[in-house]
Amino acid sequence: MPDVLDTIKPRVRELRAYTLSPERAAVKLNQNENPWDATERIKEESLRRLGGRQWSRYPDFAPVSLHERLAAFAGWRAGGIVAGNGSNELIQALLMVTITEGKRALICEPTFALYRQVATVLGGDVLSVPLDAALNYDTAAIREKIVEIKPHVTIICSPNNPTGCRITDADLVSLLELSDGLVAVDEAYFEFSGRTVVPLLERYKNLVVFRTFSKAMGLAALRVGYLLAAPELAREIGKAVLPYNLNAVSQTIAEVAVELYDAELRPLVARIIAERARLAEGLRHIDGLEPLESEANFMVVRSTLKPRYVYEELLKRDILIRDVSGYPMLQDYFRVSVGTPRENDLLLSALGEICA
Amino acid sequence: MPDVLDTIKPRVRELRAYTLSPERAAVKLNQNENPWDATERIKEESLRRLGGRQWSRYPDFAPVSLHERLAAFAGWRAGGIVAGNGSNELIQALLMVTITEGKRALICEPTFALYRQVATVLGGDVLSVPLDAALNYDTAAIREKIVEIKPHVTIICSPNNPTGCRITDADLVSLLELSDGLVAVDEAYFEFSGRTVVPLLERYKNLVVFRTFSKAMGLAALRVGYLLAAPELAREIGKAVLPYNLNAVSQTIAEVAVELYDAELRPLVARIIAERARLAEGLRHIDGLEPLESEANFMVVRSTLKPRYVYEELLKRDILIRDVSGYPMLQDYFRVSVGTPRENDLLLSALGEICA
Repeated sequence: MPDVLDTIKPRVRELRAYTLSPERAAVKLNQNENPWDATERIKEESLRRLGGRQWSRYPDFAPVSLHERLAAFAGWRAGGIVAGNGSNELIQALLMVTITEGKRALICEPTFALYRQVATVLGGDVLSVPLDAALNYDTAAIREKIVEIKPHVTIICSPNNPTGCRITDADLVSLLELSDGLVAVDEAYFEFSGRTVVPLLERYKNLVVFRTFSKAMGLAALRVGYLLAAPELAREIGKAVLPYNLNAVSQTIAEVAVELYDAELRPLVARIIAERARLAEGLRHIDGLEPLESEANFMVVRSTLKPRYVYEELLKRDILIRDVSGYPMLQDYFRVSVGTPRENDLLLSALGEICA
Repeated sequence: MPDVLDTIKPRVRELRAYTLSPERAAVKLNQNENPWDATERIKEESLRRLGGRQWSRYPDFAPVSLHERLAAFAGWRAGGIVAGNGSNELIQALLMVTITEGKRALICEPTFALYRQVATVLGGDVLSVPLDAALNYDTAAIREKIVEIKPHVTIICSPNNPTGCRITDADLVSLLELSDGLVAVDEAYFEFSGRTVVPLLERYKNLVVFRTFSKAMGLAALRVGYLLAAPELAREIGKAVLPYNLNAVSQTIAEVAVELYDAELRPLVARIIAERARLAEGLRHIDGLEPLESEANFMVVRSTLKPRYVYEELLKRDILIRDVSGYPMLQDYFRVSVGTPRENDLLLSALGEICA
């Protein structure tokens, strides 16, 4: 019998599995989560609604009632919304219907590792444009690359994970107008920038926007995300979304979070934005550290000490951050999520000690 | 600007979206769910464990503690198990790492529609072998087809949805020995047959087994499934499984269901098997109906009245079944799930009326 692994696509075999160290710590600033848990009111209302439900029955074929709430929430048509098991699932669906061998995906780097991973599994060619020297989007270079390679899909994470930079509307429009292919904007962190490109959907039929409930919405444990696009495009992408993809519990809790966003979650986002400024200011006052301005709920910090060393020293003090020095251009950087005021104080004090 | 839908793969555009009529009824026998809800003890223990958890924090990168429980439960190595968001997600992952343009998937038909749908989205060629005239697996024909087309993946649903037929171990072994490619067995309904092919994993490195929590385990609302394979193969398939794919709530409840299976769920499976025999007997006594023997928690029934008419007449009586007359070979059949004794009585009585 031949080696059974010969059945696996060569590009998949070459791929290193995306993984994350399973370290734990009392102060967890490594995954850009909302440092406050879902509020009591959200939890109570969620559990009340779940009480009457049969666990043995399938959820809705597609989560239509959530789509309707998201339409009102985001200001877009329900027919152009697809909710799923985290935005990851929707990014995968977009790539499944567009990318195969011989097709090209364009990304900027450093960025969220999943885009390259999924497009590679699908056999596509992934090309990338580096951020500029200040770690901002280099839109002129992206435009040149679009003209040169004619990508089938271009993905822009904005604000970008892990650098926090954002693409302006004017720059995005220039890419949308230049592209024959689709341009996807991952807005996982848009609430922390106060900006969204959703209004551009009306005019640009090749725009796809991804959003998540794992950051500002405070529901990372539940795995909910959604995409917004022209309804005819959303329908095609939906063909790669598995039926019953969103479990009934996550759907119900997501609906509650949308309904109570203004009362319960928006004030937490404002506190995180205020803490981001305070944390950056504190970091700037520590010798050898230079935080990069960010529009998200995290920031990368340039460090004269090796990022791995800073990571390990913080872990000894029960603080978990992300060592991003393995990313292109970020060999001198680590990333911290913005925590609660107390967590940020603990981080600043520990870093002061380590860098002293 | 060119038509934005030109970016979508032609095979995806041709595909009709898999969909299900959103009808509702008091007696729901259309989705092969466990007719009894998760028991009080399972619900209480689940809610107890969920109480202490932060909703804002990501679940485990991979659900390792569930993998360990499943290993003991299924009798296989934890390193060869991947749990996910329904077995659908794992079927998709298997096809993502093996199928692309020019690759071939072999299925038998009629069967679960998802295999063809996903392999088609991925650009593969889907070939199929019909069941034999008695609606059983035609293993000789499958063997011939394997020799002829050398499929990269062969998928056998056993017991088969929607016909309830099962492949014997001897027949499966003959396919495993003949195949250079992978052979996947979807055991979504194995509990109702009292048989599993998991022991063959030790000897056949090209075997992949799928299972679900949506049927016997009574947790369709939660979307949990898993695959079993040789660890080196499971690792490759795992590269197409998205990180944090299983939400924390579903993972926790699945662990409880595994722990309490013998005490709480196994007795319900025995009752469903007993009801299956009683329901079949009742159907045989109705003029114009002929149920097909099934090893699952459902059966197809040959009807001299048009299946669509039977479906509609039952719906008027608040009973929902599945019209499968659109499937190959099943133009004269409808499918019913085995319900509670009371639900089965209502079904038999309504069918008696309709067929009188």
